[in-house]
Amino acid sequence: MPRYALKIEYDGAPFCGWQKQIDLQTVQGTINQALQMLEPNCEGVHGAGRTDTGVHATGQVGHVDLKKNIAPERLLEALNFYMRNQGVAVVDCALAPDDFHARFSAIERQYTFRLLSRRAPMTFDKGTMWQVKHGLNLAAMQEGALHLVGQHDFTTFRSTVCQALSPIKTLDELRIEQLSYRGGVETRFHIRARSFLHNQVRSFVGTLERVGAGSWKPAQVKTVLDAKSRAACGPVSPPHGLYLSAVRYPLSPFEKV
Amino acid sequence: MPRYALKIEYDGAPFCGWQKQIDLQTVQGTINQALQMLEPNCEGVHGAGRTDTGVHATGQVGHVDLKKNIAPERLLEALNFYMRNQGVAVVDCALAPDDFHARFSAIERQYTFRLLSRRAPMTFDKGTMWQVKHGLNLAAMQEGALHLVGQHDFTTFRSTVCQALSPIKTLDELRIEQLSYRGGVETRFHIRARSFLHNQVRSFVGTLERVGAGSWKPAQVKTVLDAKSRAACGPVSPPHGLYLSAVRYPLSPFEKV
Repeated sequence: MPRYALKIEYDGAPFCGWQKQIDLQTVQGTINQALQMLEPNCEGVHGAGRTDTGVHATGQVGHVDLKKNIAPERLLEALNFYMRNQGVAVVDCALAPDDFHARFSAIERQYTFRLLSRRAPMTFDKGTMWQVKHGLNLAAMQEGALHLVGQHDFTTFRSTVCQALSPIKTLDELRIEQLSYRGGVETRFHIRARSFLHNQVRSFVGTLERVGAGSWKPAQVKTVLDAKSRAACGPVSPPHGLYLSAVRYPLSPFEKV
Repeated sequence: MPRYALKIEYDGAPFCGWQKQIDLQTVQGTINQALQMLEPNCEGVHGAGRTDTGVHATGQVGHVDLKKNIAPERLLEALNFYMRNQGVAVVDCALAPDDFHARFSAIERQYTFRLLSRRAPMTFDKGTMWQVKHGLNLAAMQEGALHLVGQHDFTTFRSTVCQALSPIKTLDELRIEQLSYRGGVETRFHIRARSFLHNQVRSFVGTLERVGAGSWKPAQVKTVLDAKSRAACGPVSPPHGLYLSAVRYPLSPFEKV
Protein backbone atom coordinates (compact mmCIF):
# COMPACT_ATOMS: atom_id res chain seq x y z
CA MET A 1 0.00 0.00 0.00
CA PRO A 2 2.10 2.92 -1.22
CA ARG A 3 2.03 6.28 0.58
CA TYR A 4 2.28 9.48 -1.45
CA ALA A 5 3.25 12.98 -0.34
CA LEU A 6 1.46 15.81 -2.15
CA LYS A 7 2.45 19.47 -2.33
CA ILE A 8 -0.79 21.39 -2.69
CA GLU A 9 -1.63 24.91 -3.83
CA TYR A 10 -5.06 26.51 -3.44
CA ASP A 11 -6.93 29.76 -3.68
CA GLY A 12 -8.78 29.95 -0.37
CA ALA A 13 -11.66 32.09 -1.65
CA PRO A 14 -14.12 29.37 -2.71
CA PHE A 15 -13.44 27.13 0.31
CA CYS A 16 -14.66 26.88 3.90
CA GLY A 17 -11.09 26.14 4.89
CA TRP A 18 -9.02 22.98 4.61
CA GLN A 19 -10.85 20.49 6.80
CA LYS A 20 -13.61 18.33 5.33
CA GLN A 21 -17.12 19.17 6.49
CA ILE A 22 -20.46 17.70 5.52
CA ASP A 23 -22.25 19.83 2.88
CA LEU A 24 -19.52 22.49 2.77
CA GLN A 25 -16.92 22.94 0.07
CA THR A 26 -13.49 22.45 1.60
CA VAL A 27 -10.03 21.79 0.17
CA GLN A 28 -9.67 18.39 1.84
CA GLY A 29 -13.16 17.41 0.67
CA THR A 30 -12.33 18.45 -2.90
CA ILE A 31 -9.12 16.40 -2.94
CA ASN A 32 -10.92 13.43 -1.38
CA GLN A 33 -13.56 13.53 -4.13
CA ALA A 34 -10.81 13.39 -6.74
CA LEU A 35 -9.17 10.49 -4.89
CA GLN A 36 -12.51 8.64 -4.86
CA MET A 37 -12.48 8.79 -8.65
CA LEU A 38 -9.18 6.91 -8.59
CA GLU A 39 -9.97 4.51 -5.74
CA PRO A 40 -13.56 4.39 -4.48
CA ASN A 41 -12.52 3.25 -1.00
CA CYS A 42 -9.63 5.66 -0.57
CA GLU A 43 -9.44 6.97 2.99
CA GLY A 44 -8.48 10.42 1.80
CA VAL A 45 -5.75 12.98 2.33
CA HIS A 46 -4.21 14.13 5.61
CA GLY A 47 -2.91 17.71 5.64
CA ALA A 48 -0.06 19.34 7.54
CA GLY A 49 -2.14 22.32 8.64
CA ARG A 50 -5.83 23.19 8.82
CA THR A 51 -6.15 26.55 7.12
CA ASP A 52 -9.19 28.74 7.82
CA THR A 53 -11.91 29.88 5.46
CA GLY A 54 -10.43 32.14 2.79
CA VAL A 55 -6.79 31.39 3.62
CA HIS A 56 -4.61 30.36 0.67
CA ALA A 57 -1.80 27.85 0.37
CA THR A 58 1.17 27.70 -1.95
CA GLY A 59 2.92 24.93 0.00
CA GLN A 60 0.39 22.84 1.92
CA VAL A 61 1.58 19.25 2.27
CA GLY A 62 -0.63 16.18 2.47
CA HIS A 63 -0.21 12.43 2.43
CA VAL A 64 -2.47 9.70 1.10
CA ASP A 65 -2.39 5.90 0.95
CA LEU A 66 -3.48 4.12 -2.21
CA LYS A 67 -3.93 0.44 -2.92
CA LYS A 68 -2.70 0.71 -6.50
CA ASN A 69 0.87 1.54 -7.35
CA ILE A 70 0.65 4.67 -9.50
CA ALA A 71 3.67 6.61 -10.73
CA PRO A 72 3.77 9.93 -8.81
CA GLU A 73 3.68 11.98 -12.06
CA ARG A 74 0.53 10.11 -13.11
CA LEU A 75 -1.13 10.66 -9.72
CA LEU A 76 -0.39 14.39 -10.01
CA GLU A 77 -1.89 14.53 -13.50
CA ALA A 78 -4.97 12.50 -12.53
CA LEU A 79 -5.77 14.54 -9.42
CA ASN A 80 -5.32 17.81 -11.32
CA PHE A 81 -7.59 16.48 -14.05
CA TYR A 82 -10.38 15.62 -11.60
CA MET A 83 -9.96 18.95 -9.74
CA ARG A 84 -9.72 21.18 -12.80
CA ASN A 85 -11.18 24.68 -12.39
CA GLN A 86 -11.84 24.12 -8.70
CA GLY A 87 -9.03 26.32 -7.35
CA VAL A 88 -6.80 23.48 -6.09
CA ALA A 89 -3.74 22.02 -7.78
CA VAL A 90 -1.21 19.37 -6.83
CA VAL A 91 2.14 20.93 -7.75
CA ASP A 92 4.41 18.11 -6.60
CA CYS A 93 3.93 14.44 -5.80
CA ALA A 94 6.37 11.83 -4.51
CA LEU A 95 6.42 8.38 -2.94
CA ALA A 96 6.92 8.73 0.81
CA PRO A 97 8.08 6.32 3.51
CA ASP A 98 5.32 4.47 5.39
CA ASP A 99 6.05 6.43 8.56
CA PHE A 100 5.79 9.83 6.85
CA HIS A 101 2.84 11.79 8.24
CA ALA A 102 2.04 15.18 6.74
CA ARG A 103 0.98 16.58 10.09
CA PHE A 104 2.91 14.70 12.76
CA SER A 105 6.24 14.52 10.92
CA ALA A 106 6.27 18.29 10.28
CA ILE A 107 8.83 20.28 12.25
CA GLU A 108 7.99 23.75 10.94
CA ARG A 109 5.21 25.68 9.22
CA GLN A 110 5.87 28.84 7.19
CA TYR A 111 3.25 31.46 6.49
CA THR A 112 3.43 34.50 4.25
CA PHE A 113 1.10 37.48 4.51
CA ARG A 114 0.77 39.97 1.65
CA LEU A 115 -0.44 43.50 2.44
CA LEU A 116 -0.73 46.14 -0.30
CA SER A 117 -0.57 49.90 0.33
CA ARG A 118 -1.95 51.65 -2.74
CA ARG A 119 -4.51 54.32 -3.45
CA ALA A 120 -5.73 52.83 -6.73
CA PRO A 121 -7.88 49.70 -6.52
CA MET A 122 -6.37 46.38 -7.60
CA THR A 123 -6.68 45.32 -11.23
CA PHE A 124 -4.50 42.22 -11.04
CA ASP A 125 -3.99 40.04 -7.94
CA LYS A 126 -7.48 40.68 -6.57
CA GLY A 127 -8.20 38.50 -3.56
CA THR A 128 -4.51 37.71 -3.08
CA MET A 129 -3.54 40.60 -0.79
CA TRP A 130 -5.12 42.67 1.94
CA GLN A 131 -5.26 46.24 0.60
CA VAL A 132 -5.04 49.46 2.60
CA LYS A 133 -4.77 52.96 1.12
CA HIS A 134 -2.14 54.37 3.49
CA GLY A 135 1.60 53.78 3.65
CA LEU A 136 3.21 51.62 6.35
CA ASN A 137 6.42 52.37 8.25
CA LEU A 138 8.69 49.35 7.79
CA ALA A 139 11.15 50.18 10.58
CA ALA A 140 8.34 50.65 13.11
CA MET A 141 6.75 47.32 12.16
CA GLN A 142 10.12 45.58 12.39
CA GLU A 143 10.69 47.06 15.85
CA GLY A 144 7.25 45.90 16.98
CA ALA A 145 7.76 42.43 15.51
CA LEU A 146 10.96 41.85 17.52
CA HIS A 147 8.85 41.64 20.69
CA LEU A 148 7.00 38.63 19.28
CA VAL A 149 9.96 36.47 18.28
CA GLY A 150 10.95 33.68 20.70
CA GLN A 151 9.00 31.67 23.26
CA HIS A 152 6.00 33.48 24.73
CA ASP A 153 2.54 33.02 26.12
CA PHE A 154 0.56 34.18 23.05
CA THR A 155 -2.87 34.35 24.70
CA THR A 156 -3.29 37.90 23.32
CA PHE A 157 -2.82 36.68 19.74
CA ARG A 158 -4.98 33.58 19.97
CA SER A 159 -8.60 33.20 18.91
CA THR A 160 -11.01 32.51 21.77
CA VAL A 161 -12.03 29.29 20.00
CA CYS A 162 -8.44 28.02 19.74
CA GLN A 163 -8.23 24.39 20.82
CA ALA A 164 -4.47 24.19 21.48
CA LEU A 165 -3.64 22.82 24.95
CA SER A 166 -1.21 25.62 25.74
CA PRO A 167 -0.90 29.27 24.62
CA ILE A 168 2.88 29.00 24.85
CA LYS A 169 4.58 28.77 21.45
CA THR A 170 7.99 29.59 20.01
CA LEU A 171 8.04 31.99 17.07
CA ASP A 172 11.24 31.35 15.11
CA GLU A 173 10.99 34.23 12.66
CA LEU A 174 8.85 37.24 11.83
CA ARG A 175 10.60 38.94 8.91
CA ILE A 176 9.03 41.90 7.15
CA GLU A 177 10.05 43.25 3.74
CA GLN A 178 8.65 45.85 1.39
CA LEU A 179 8.57 45.57 -2.39
CA SER A 180 7.53 48.22 -4.86
CA TYR A 181 4.20 47.50 -6.52
CA ARG A 182 2.95 49.74 -9.33
CA GLY A 183 1.81 52.98 -7.70
CA GLY A 184 2.17 51.47 -4.24
CA VAL A 185 4.15 49.28 -1.86
CA GLU A 186 3.63 45.65 -0.90
CA THR A 187 4.53 44.66 2.64
CA ARG A 188 5.29 40.97 3.00
CA PHE A 189 5.42 39.19 6.36
CA HIS A 190 7.35 35.90 6.56
CA ILE A 191 6.54 33.91 9.69
CA ARG A 192 8.01 30.60 10.85
CA ALA A 193 7.25 28.36 13.83
CA ARG A 194 6.90 24.68 14.67
CA SER A 195 3.17 25.27 15.10
CA PHE A 196 0.72 28.12 15.50
CA LEU A 197 -2.33 29.02 17.56
CA HIS A 198 -5.66 29.67 15.85
CA ASN A 199 -5.67 33.14 14.20
CA GLN A 200 -2.14 33.82 15.47
CA VAL A 201 -0.67 35.05 12.18
CA ARG A 202 -3.68 37.21 11.31
CA SER A 203 -3.61 38.68 14.84
CA PHE A 204 0.10 39.51 14.45
CA VAL A 205 -0.44 41.17 11.06
CA GLY A 206 -3.51 43.14 12.15
CA THR A 207 -1.59 44.47 15.13
CA LEU A 208 1.61 45.27 13.19
CA GLU A 209 -0.45 47.07 10.51
CA ARG A 210 -1.61 49.46 13.26
CA VAL A 211 2.05 50.01 14.19
CA GLY A 212 3.00 50.63 10.54
CA ALA A 213 0.15 53.09 10.15
CA GLY A 214 1.39 55.04 13.18
CA SER A 215 -1.66 54.37 15.38
CA TRP A 216 0.33 52.18 17.75
CA LYS A 217 3.85 52.65 19.08
CA PRO A 218 6.15 49.65 18.48
CA ALA A 219 6.53 49.15 22.25
CA GLN A 220 2.77 48.68 22.55
CA VAL A 221 3.23 45.24 20.93
CA LYS A 222 5.14 44.17 24.03
CA THR A 223 2.55 45.71 26.33
CA VAL A 224 -0.30 43.76 24.76
CA LEU A 225 1.76 40.53 24.58
CA ASP A 226 2.50 40.86 28.31
CA ALA A 227 -1.18 41.51 29.02
CA LYS A 228 -1.95 37.87 28.02
CA SER A 229 -5.46 38.99 27.19
CA ARG A 230 -7.28 38.52 23.91
CA ALA A 231 -8.99 41.88 24.45
CA ALA A 232 -5.62 43.65 24.23
CA CYS A 233 -4.97 42.44 20.65
CA GLY A 234 -5.17 44.75 17.64
CA PRO A 235 -7.62 44.01 14.82
CA VAL A 236 -7.40 40.58 13.18
CA SER A 237 -6.43 40.96 9.52
CA PRO A 238 -8.67 39.48 6.80
CA PRO A 239 -7.80 35.96 5.57
CA HIS A 240 -7.22 36.69 1.87
CA GLY A 241 -3.64 37.98 2.33
CA LEU A 242 -2.52 34.84 4.18
CA TYR A 243 -0.71 31.85 2.64
CA LEU A 244 0.53 28.59 4.14
CA SER A 245 3.72 28.78 2.09
CA ALA A 246 5.83 25.82 3.25
CA VAL A 247 5.98 22.88 5.64
CA ARG A 248 9.36 21.54 6.68
CA TYR A 249 10.25 17.91 7.53
CA PRO A 250 13.46 16.32 8.83
CA LEU A 251 13.72 14.71 5.39
CA SER A 252 11.73 16.41 2.64
CA PRO A 253 9.66 13.89 0.69
CA PHE A 254 10.03 16.05 -2.43
CA GLU A 255 13.01 16.34 -4.70
CA LYS A 256 14.67 19.73 -4.76
CA VAL A 257 13.89 21.49 -8.03
CA MET B 1 -7.48 74.12 -19.77
CA PRO B 2 -5.19 71.85 -17.77
CA ARG B 3 -3.69 68.72 -19.31
CA TYR B 4 -3.25 65.61 -17.18
CA ALA B 5 -1.03 62.58 -17.72
CA LEU B 6 -2.44 59.28 -16.49
CA LYS B 7 -0.58 56.04 -15.80
CA ILE B 8 -3.07 53.27 -16.47
CA GLU B 9 -3.21 49.60 -15.53
CA TYR B 10 -5.68 47.12 -16.97
CA ASP B 11 -6.54 43.45 -17.22
CA GLY B 12 -7.01 42.94 -20.94
CA ALA B 13 -9.42 39.99 -20.63
CA PRO B 14 -12.76 41.86 -20.62
CA PHE B 15 -11.76 44.35 -23.33
CA CYS B 16 -11.68 44.42 -27.12
CA GLY B 17 -8.35 46.20 -26.86
CA TRP B 18 -7.49 49.79 -26.04
CA GLN B 19 -9.08 51.76 -28.87
CA LYS B 20 -12.67 52.98 -28.55
CA GLN B 21 -15.19 51.25 -30.79
CA ILE B 22 -18.93 51.64 -31.09
CA ASP B 23 -20.83 48.97 -29.12
CA LEU B 24 -17.68 47.18 -27.96
CA GLN B 25 -16.14 47.37 -24.52
CA THR B 26 -12.67 48.89 -24.79
CA VAL B 27 -10.25 50.41 -22.30
CA GLN B 28 -10.32 53.86 -23.92
CA GLY B 29 -14.13 53.75 -24.05
CA THR B 30 -14.32 52.80 -20.36
CA ILE B 31 -12.04 55.68 -19.34
CA ASN B 32 -13.96 58.09 -21.58
CA GLN B 33 -17.24 57.11 -19.89
CA ALA B 34 -15.71 57.89 -16.50
CA LEU B 35 -14.41 61.23 -17.83
CA GLN B 36 -17.92 62.06 -19.07
CA MET B 37 -19.16 61.73 -15.50
CA LEU B 38 -16.71 64.46 -14.53
CA GLU B 39 -17.12 66.70 -17.60
CA PRO B 40 -19.94 65.85 -20.01
CA ASN B 41 -18.14 67.43 -22.97
CA CYS B 42 -14.72 65.96 -22.28
CA GLU B 43 -12.96 64.94 -25.49
CA GLY B 44 -11.53 61.85 -23.84
CA VAL B 45 -8.19 60.19 -23.29
CA HIS B 46 -5.34 59.69 -25.79
CA GLY B 47 -3.15 56.64 -25.20
CA ALA B 48 0.51 55.96 -25.93
CA GLY B 49 -0.13 52.59 -27.52
CA ARG B 50 -3.11 50.70 -28.92
CA THR B 51 -3.04 47.31 -27.25
CA ASP B 52 -4.92 44.41 -28.84
CA THR B 53 -7.84 42.40 -27.49
CA GLY B 54 -6.79 40.52 -24.36
CA VAL B 55 -3.45 42.31 -23.94
CA HIS B 56 -2.79 43.77 -20.48
CA ALA B 57 -1.09 46.95 -19.36
CA THR B 58 0.73 47.83 -16.19
CA GLY B 59 2.19 51.08 -17.54
CA GLN B 60 -0.02 52.44 -20.32
CA VAL B 61 0.15 56.26 -20.42
CA GLY B 62 -2.63 58.57 -21.51
CA HIS B 63 -3.33 62.30 -21.53
CA VAL B 64 -6.57 64.19 -21.17
CA ASP B 65 -7.63 67.84 -21.20
CA LEU B 66 -10.18 69.06 -18.70
CA LYS B 67 -11.90 72.44 -18.35
CA LYS B 68 -11.95 72.32 -14.56
CA ASN B 69 -8.81 72.50 -12.50
CA ILE B 70 -8.85 69.33 -10.40
CA ALA B 71 -6.00 68.27 -8.13
CA PRO B 72 -4.33 65.22 -9.74
CA GLU B 73 -4.94 63.07 -6.63
CA ARG B 74 -8.64 63.89 -6.80
CA LEU B 75 -8.81 63.09 -10.53
CA LEU B 76 -7.19 59.70 -9.83
CA GLU B 77 -9.69 58.96 -7.05
CA ALA B 78 -12.69 60.10 -9.11
CA LEU B 79 -11.77 58.07 -12.21
CA ASN B 80 -11.09 54.97 -10.12
CA PHE B 81 -14.44 55.46 -8.39
CA TYR B 82 -16.34 55.61 -11.69
CA MET B 83 -14.40 52.65 -13.13
CA ARG B 84 -14.60 50.42 -10.05
CA ASN B 85 -14.77 46.67 -10.76
CA GLN B 86 -14.24 47.21 -14.50
CA GLY B 87 -10.64 45.99 -14.66
CA VAL B 88 -9.03 49.40 -15.24
CA ALA B 89 -7.27 51.58 -12.67
CA VAL B 90 -5.43 54.88 -12.83
CA VAL B 91 -2.30 54.27 -10.75
CA ASP B 92 -0.68 57.68 -11.19
CA CYS B 93 -1.87 61.11 -12.28
CA ALA B 94 0.04 64.36 -12.78
CA LEU B 95 -0.37 67.76 -14.41
CA ALA B 96 1.46 67.75 -17.74
CA PRO B 97 2.75 70.54 -20.01
CA ASP B 98 0.39 71.64 -22.81
CA ASP B 99 2.68 70.11 -25.43
CA PHE B 100 2.83 66.71 -23.75
CA HIS B 101 1.21 64.07 -25.96
CA ALA B 102 0.94 60.50 -24.65
CA ARG B 103 1.54 59.03 -28.10
CA PHE B 104 3.64 61.53 -30.05
CA SER B 105 5.95 62.55 -27.19
CA ALA B 106 6.82 58.92 -26.39
CA ILE B 107 10.36 57.83 -27.25
CA GLU B 108 10.12 54.20 -26.13
CA ARG B 109 7.60 51.46 -25.37
CA GLN B 110 8.39 48.54 -23.09
CA TYR B 111 6.54 45.24 -23.19
CA THR B 112 6.80 42.27 -20.87
CA PHE B 113 5.64 38.77 -21.77
CA ARG B 114 5.06 36.13 -19.07
CA LEU B 115 5.25 32.45 -20.04
CA LEU B 116 4.80 29.70 -17.44
CA SER B 117 6.22 26.18 -17.80
CA ARG B 118 4.43 23.95 -15.28
CA ARG B 119 2.63 20.63 -15.35
CA ALA B 120 0.01 21.56 -12.76
CA PRO B 121 -2.71 23.96 -13.87
CA MET B 122 -2.68 27.51 -12.50
CA THR B 123 -4.49 28.24 -9.26
CA PHE B 124 -3.36 31.85 -8.84
CA ASP B 125 -2.46 34.25 -11.67
CA LYS B 126 -4.93 32.70 -14.12
CA GLY B 127 -5.16 34.74 -17.31
CA THR B 128 -1.92 36.58 -16.55
CA MET B 129 0.54 34.18 -18.22
CA TRP B 130 0.65 31.89 -21.21
CA GLN B 131 1.09 28.37 -19.83
CA VAL B 132 2.87 25.45 -21.47
CA LYS B 133 3.60 22.10 -19.80
CA HIS B 134 7.17 21.62 -21.05
CA GLY B 135 10.41 23.25 -19.94
CA LEU B 136 12.17 25.92 -22.05
CA ASN B 137 15.90 26.20 -22.69
CA LEU B 138 16.92 29.71 -21.64
CA ALA B 139 20.32 29.77 -23.38
CA ALA B 140 18.81 28.64 -26.69
CA MET B 141 16.11 31.34 -26.52
CA GLN B 142 18.72 33.98 -25.66
CA GLU B 143 20.85 32.89 -28.63
CA GLY B 144 17.82 33.09 -30.93
CA ALA B 145 16.78 36.48 -29.55
CA LEU B 146 20.17 38.03 -30.37
CA HIS B 147 19.32 37.81 -34.07
CA LEU B 148 16.33 40.11 -33.54
CA VAL B 149 18.02 42.97 -31.70
CA GLY B 150 18.96 46.03 -33.76
CA GLN B 151 17.52 47.54 -36.95
CA HIS B 152 15.83 45.03 -39.25
CA ASP B 153 13.07 44.55 -41.78
CA PHE B 154 10.59 42.75 -39.52
CA THR B 155 8.12 41.68 -42.23
CA THR B 156 8.28 38.10 -40.90
CA PHE B 157 7.13 39.21 -37.44
CA ARG B 158 4.39 41.57 -38.55
CA SER B 159 0.67 40.85 -38.81
CA THR B 160 -0.70 41.00 -42.33
CA VAL B 161 -3.13 43.71 -41.19
CA CYS B 162 -0.36 45.92 -39.78
CA GLN B 163 -0.82 49.51 -40.92
CA ALA B 164 2.71 50.80 -40.26
CA LEU B 165 4.25 52.52 -43.31
CA SER B 166 7.50 50.58 -43.08
CA PRO B 167 8.43 47.11 -41.74
CA ILE B 168 11.82 48.45 -40.65
CA LYS B 169 12.11 48.97 -36.91
CA THR B 170 14.89 49.08 -34.35
CA LEU B 171 14.62 46.65 -31.47
CA ASP B 172 16.62 48.05 -28.55
CA GLU B 173 16.38 45.10 -26.19
CA LEU B 174 15.02 41.57 -25.99
CA ARG B 175 16.07 40.28 -22.57
CA ILE B 176 14.91 36.91 -21.30
CA GLU B 177 15.02 35.73 -17.69
CA GLN B 178 13.68 32.71 -15.84
CA LEU B 179 12.25 32.76 -12.33
CA SER B 180 11.22 29.81 -10.23
CA TYR B 181 7.47 29.46 -9.84
CA ARG B 182 6.02 26.81 -7.52
CA GLY B 183 6.49 23.48 -9.28
CA GLY B 184 7.56 25.22 -12.49
CA VAL B 185 9.53 28.00 -14.15
CA GLU B 186 8.36 31.39 -15.40
CA THR B 187 10.11 32.76 -18.47
CA ARG B 188 9.87 36.53 -18.74
CA PHE B 189 10.64 38.45 -21.95
CA HIS B 190 11.51 42.15 -21.64
CA ILE B 191 11.29 43.99 -24.94
CA ARG B 192 12.06 47.64 -25.68
CA ALA B 193 11.77 49.74 -28.86
CA ARG B 194 10.70 53.20 -29.96
CA SER B 195 7.68 51.62 -31.59
CA PHE B 196 6.42 48.21 -32.67
CA LEU B 197 4.65 46.59 -35.60
CA HIS B 198 1.28 44.91 -35.14
CA ASN B 199 1.67 41.50 -33.39
CA GLN B 200 5.47 41.93 -33.34
CA VAL B 201 6.01 40.98 -29.70
CA ARG B 202 3.62 38.02 -29.80
CA SER B 203 5.30 36.81 -33.01
CA PHE B 204 8.73 37.06 -31.33
CA VAL B 205 7.56 35.13 -28.26
CA GLY B 206 5.74 32.43 -30.22
CA THR B 207 8.87 31.85 -32.30
CA LEU B 208 11.28 31.89 -29.34
CA GLU B 209 9.04 29.45 -27.44
CA ARG B 210 9.60 26.97 -30.30
CA VAL B 211 13.35 27.55 -29.88
CA GLY B 212 13.13 27.03 -26.10
CA ALA B 213 11.14 23.83 -26.59
CA GLY B 214 13.84 22.48 -28.92
CA SER B 215 11.67 22.36 -32.06
CA TRP B 216 13.65 25.14 -33.72
CA LYS B 217 17.39 25.75 -33.72
CA PRO B 218 18.39 29.25 -32.53
CA ALA B 219 19.88 30.03 -35.97
CA GLN B 220 16.48 29.44 -37.55
CA VAL B 221 15.38 32.76 -36.05
CA LYS B 222 17.86 34.51 -38.36
CA THR B 223 16.74 32.42 -41.32
CA VAL B 224 13.09 33.40 -40.92
CA LEU B 225 13.97 37.06 -40.20
CA ASP B 226 16.01 37.16 -43.44
CA ALA B 227 13.13 35.54 -45.34
CA LYS B 228 11.08 38.74 -44.87
CA SER B 229 7.97 36.64 -45.22
CA ARG B 230 5.06 36.39 -42.80
CA ALA B 231 4.67 32.73 -43.73
CA ALA B 232 8.11 31.97 -42.27
CA CYS B 233 7.14 33.14 -38.75
CA GLY B 234 6.58 30.72 -35.87
CA PRO B 235 3.21 30.58 -34.11
CA VAL B 236 1.88 33.85 -32.66
CA SER B 237 1.61 33.56 -28.87
CA PRO B 238 -1.75 34.20 -27.17
CA PRO B 239 -2.39 37.74 -25.88
CA HIS B 240 -2.93 37.04 -22.18
CA GLY B 241 0.80 36.83 -21.33
CA LEU B 242 1.54 40.26 -22.83
CA TYR B 243 1.81 43.55 -20.91
CA LEU B 244 2.49 47.10 -22.06
CA SER B 245 4.71 47.72 -19.05
CA ALA B 246 6.15 51.21 -19.55
CA VAL B 247 6.27 54.20 -21.89
CA ARG B 248 9.28 56.50 -21.78
CA TYR B 249 9.34 60.27 -22.46
CA PRO B 250 12.21 62.77 -22.66
CA LEU B 251 10.80 64.19 -19.42
CA SER B 252 8.57 61.85 -17.44
CA PRO B 253 5.33 63.59 -16.44
CA PHE B 254 5.22 61.46 -13.29
CA GLU B 255 7.19 61.90 -10.11
CA LYS B 256 9.63 59.16 -9.33
CA VAL B 257 8.30 57.02 -6.45
